Amino acid sequence: METVQNEKGESTRGQISIHTENIFPIIKKFLYSDHEIFLRELVSNAVDATQKLRQLSSFGEFGGELGGLKVTVTLDEEAKTITVSDNGIGMTAEEIKKYINQIAFSGASDFLEKYKDKTDDKGAIIGHFGLGFYSAFMVAEQVEIITKSYRDGAESARWVCDGSTEFELTPAEKTERGTDIILHIAPDSEEFLDKARLRTILDKYARFLPTPVEFDGQTVNNTTPIWTKSPADLTDEDYKSFYRELYPMGEEPLFWIHLNVDYPFNLTGILYFPRIKNELRFQREKIQLYSRQVFITDEVKDVVPDFLMMLHGVIDSPDIPLNVSRSFLQADSSVKKINGYITRKVADKLNDLFNTDRKGFEEKFDDIGLFIKYGILSDEKFWEKAKSFVLLKNTEGQYATLDEYREKIQANQLDKNETLVMLYTSDRKQQDAYIASAVRRGYDVLLLDNVIDSHFINALEQKLEKVHFQRVDADTLDKLIDKGLNNESVLSEDDRTKLKDLFDQVLDNKSLNVSVEAQPIDELPVTITMPEFMRRMKDMAALSGEQSFYGSLPVSYNVVVNANHPLIGKLLAETNSDVQTALTKQVYDLALLSQNMLTGAELTAFVRRTVDAL
Amino acid sequence: METVQNEKGESTRGQISIHTENIFPIIKKFLYSDHEIFLRELVSNAVDATQKLRQLSSFGEFGGELGGLKVTVTLDEEAKTITVSDNGIGMTAEEIKKYINQIAFSGASDFLEKYKDKTDDKGAIIGHFGLGFYSAFMVAEQVEIITKSYRDGAESARWVCDGSTEFELTPAEKTERGTDIILHIAPDSEEFLDKARLRTILDKYARFLPTPVEFDGQTVNNTTPIWTKSPADLTDEDYKSFYRELYPMGEEPLFWIHLNVDYPFNLTGILYFPRIKNELRFQREKIQLYSRQVFITDEVKDVVPDFLMMLHGVIDSPDIPLNVSRSFLQADSSVKKINGYITRKVADKLNDLFNTDRKGFEEKFDDIGLFIKYGILSDEKFWEKAKSFVLLKNTEGQYATLDEYREKIQANQLDKNETLVMLYTSDRKQQDAYIASAVRRGYDVLLLDNVIDSHFINALEQKLEKVHFQRVDADTLDKLIDKGLNNESVLSEDDRTKLKDLFDQVLDNKSLNVSVEAQPIDELPVTITMPEFMRRMKDMAALSGEQSFYGSLPVSYNVVVNANHPLIGKLLAETNSDVQTALTKQVYDLALLSQNMLTGAELTAFVRRTVDAL
Repeated sequence: METVQNEKGESTRGQISIHTENIFPIIKKFLYSDHEIFLRELVSNAVDATQKLRQLSSFGEFGGELGGLKVTVTLDEEAKTITVSDNGIGMTAEEIKKYINQIAFSGASDFLEKYKDKTDDKGAIIGHFGLGFYSAFMVAEQVEIITKSYRDGAESARWVCDGSTEFELTPAEKTERGTDIILHIAPDSEEFLDKARLRTILDKYARFLPTPVEFDGQTVNNTTPIWTKSPADLTDEDYKSFYRELYPMGEEPLFWIHLNVDYPFNLTGILYFPRIKNELRFQREKIQLYSRQVFITDEVKDVVPDFLMMLHGVIDSPDIPLNVSRSFLQADSSVKKINGYITRKVADKLNDLFNTDRKGFEEKFDDIGLFIKYGILSDEKFWEKAKSFVLLKNTEGQYATLDEYREKIQANQLDKNETLVMLYTSDRKQQDAYIASAVRRGYDVLLLDNVIDSHFINALEQKLEKVHFQRVDADTLDKLIDKGLNNESVLSEDDRTKLKDLFDQVLDNKSLNVSVEAQPIDELPVTITMPEFMRRMKDMAALSGEQSFYGSLPVSYNVVVNANHPLIGKLLAETNSDVQTALTKQVYDLALLSQNMLTGAELTAFVRRTVDAL
Repeated sequence: METVQNEKGESTRGQISIHTENIFPIIKKFLYSDHEIFLRELVSNAVDATQKLRQLSSFGEFGGELGGLKVTVTLDEEAKTITVSDNGIGMTAEEIKKYINQIAFSGASDFLEKYKDKTDDKGAIIGHFGLGFYSAFMVAEQVEIITKSYRDGAESARWVCDGSTEFELTPAEKTERGTDIILHIAPDSEEFLDKARLRTILDKYARFLPTPVEFDGQTVNNTTPIWTKSPADLTDEDYKSFYRELYPMGEEPLFWIHLNVDYPFNLTGILYFPRIKNELRFQREKIQLYSRQVFITDEVKDVVPDFLMMLHGVIDSPDIPLNVSRSFLQADSSVKKINGYITRKVADKLNDLFNTDRKGFEEKFDDIGLFIKYGILSDEKFWEKAKSFVLLKNTEGQYATLDEYREKIQANQLDKNETLVMLYTSDRKQQDAYIASAVRRGYDVLLLDNVIDSHFINALEQKLEKVHFQRVDADTLDKLIDKGLNNESVLSEDDRTKLKDLFDQVLDNKSLNVSVEAQPIDELPVTITMPEFMRRMKDMAALSGEQSFYGSLPVSYNVVVNANHPLIGKLLAETNSDVQTALTKQVYDLALLSQNMLTGAELTAFVRRTVDAL
């Protein structure tokens, strides 16, 4: 249809053309990355054919018996064929010419166009691009269509093509309404002539198609998965049993959200909150993406916000823009809207749970806290909602919202600069001695022991005013919450200097900063601390795995000698210098033990020394 | 071109047709997942045009001056255009009609067909499917081509199309040879009218294209990346400096492999072994895949065997089957061949290093051991090669091959069943007391402390005959390597029974199995062990993260009381039952300490008790 430029080089207009013999091999070979897709496409088309007939019947355009609409997949290993049959609308020879012989002229679009005023249920028709049928040639050396239209008096027809652009169209002998697609499998695709393989493919793609699909005498699909129903018609048990259907090996979910939106995009689905505990390396890729009940992919990273990738469940949307082979997502602004919608729904559901069942929310918090904190870190809009329901848990197992917690510690944990100091532990076992000391003083200690908590703490310090987090072992308690009060020292300044010199000399380690401080006598004789800021920076560096300034700094600890402890007095008074050295080492080893820093050969020596002393 | 079936329904033959107006929107909108691809496609085409001219010149088909062949990308923010210009072969109006107006008629295939006997260097031509040019319409509302062929006396031409299937072709005023593609950017794609953005895209895709690409006054590419050169012409510094070019932030690589194969597929590339230490969660996706110097993707998981995904570098192959939009791989048997080739090359390189520089190999082993072990676990063919060079390292830092190690421990570590017992530690600090005991007996202890080692141990036990691995704390040494010898017990059987009852009663913990054994007196009074088999099963369960039988078992420890230790004699003789109980607890706590199992409140209490005792 192209106009030839005339001889004198004057302007011409013309039509771009695509020659079938050039594009056809590309469609056949390169459009789909995965050859098993042919079965998804053919079964989807067959389901479409039955759904169209159902719709025609409901419009009164088809007066016959629908009968049991179904799709049948048949494997014949001997004949080396796979047949996909349906008893749907079928095609006349004219329709074959229109829909099959002209590639990319989607029958589904045409059908929707024609009946657009009559149906609200556009979702029932799967086909979109009209290329799917040709995926048959990825695996077949010859494809036959034998079909008979639902129309009164229609003649049946047979179409056959060997994968070239040439086809043959003849009358057929088919007496029943519907279409059979017969694939004569090519030698290089005989892997598909296998019952178990076909069953696996059908289980993957056809599991929730809306028309029964039979294979090997069994129906392989659930035609009305619960996401297609109204929440009002569903019980908790329905949701739980659907979860078991999706993840037979999974633990029961905590709760779920039924997604249902019509405008500005169409999306349904159910997202489940699994029990996840303390695992950041949690298995993602548990959300399945469907388009009109056809499985598309379980890689939903662009559709679902990153922090919700830990959820399980299904999302079904015809509006998620897929590429032509329906294999991956298009970058698209509507994806952002879907993203925002899902985030909002999740925040609302959590808020709802918090408001209607505070106790139940607290019980679930160990499982859902990770989502919530991750959401707070990654999405400002989520934070705006979550700040009223995110909980802090202390070492006693008590939960409080951010506001409640400020209130709770206001009286006792305000320092001299009017900053509220929130004490926390990142490991209640390892930091037990420090927690015990803090609790003895009436301080509250938060349990922030998840990998995400170091980021969460940083975020809260930025979002909340006049709040500072300190790990219980970051300093002595008098310094952690500095109220501007000083303890009396029983030792003179001279004695304190002597003590410091003694420790410096015995420990002989430049990365230790020894100081002698007047602490209450119920504190240990020696305490080891690591300053909050440096420790946090080093934690971050370790988490990121990158070389960094802080990561490369030597670890530096503070060794605080308690001037008021009787054992320290005894140590100072000791005149035998060997005994004094041994005792100094022993109290330092005990401090290391308390901080879980006495390990390896030093621990072995400590144990043997103690055994010998017994 | 379709033959109409005649009225009587007789057989007809005809041609499948693809109507341009149907397929064109699909090509424009859905073929590419990522809109930025347009620039890759247009710049690749421009490079092709220059490479073709270079080839024509070398065949003597072009007698003119090549000049400085180059491609220029120009951004005009005011006019909202992006122009890609080259001084390559250009097109006549006839060629535009042939190559542009007929979509999917690839100019490159045509060129290669015509000159196939004259050139071995098919690699120089990038284009393949002939669809790339149309990706311009993903971002442009109008596209102009202004071009002048290299042929003597050729007239220049201008082609313009607004994204419909209609084009206009007119004479142009271009005086220089070459082609300008002018994109009039559509309102929804104005994000691309940004200098930094274009530079980023060019850096990603055009970085190693073979013709200079200029943008904003700078050449953005290295036209002769070292993988295109012969290894004989390259120095170590060349490889290192190319590594720095690829990964400016990376540490220096350990060594590298230059890949170069012509048959049965074409592949070049350089794979670097990075320093990785003890990290299994290593950053993958560091290998870049190119096709004729055009960047394709950094997701190479199907091309590179999984265990080599930790390598860095580039692979360039025109034979890796990509889908039509060159965005992802086709499942293909040639991919398996490529996979096998890369595995073989890596094994050969390692073997070579081992044979020519044993010392250097040992120095690198801490970094490359992870690859090697992973390879052994996942690929039988790799194991066949690797079994002669994989090394075991002991706690002294000495390395031995599997054969050397058998030899080394043969005399001392054979048990009564002629099984060679390889002792190992998974944490030299934590298991220090146990290592020290083993070393005191002259046993060798292997350091197998990587996450992968638990799998590696299982694999070796299956692959090697009569070899069993035991962790040093899995039992007492007399049982770990049971030579059938029994130590004399200083205590009577009666006393031993009394002791067991005492410990059972004081510890009061059903999951502890207390036994009293005659051990050498230099062993601790009490030792805690965990049986190898159960511990391994639990470790596996924890690694897999799945619920499993072994994972759900309670942790069960053996508490072995050393009947021959003087302190145990003293304990038994103690008549004050309070003192006896306290002493029993203390020796048990010390055993827990040795196994790093004394934690939390119990550790705090132990420390305070010990401070008080001082």
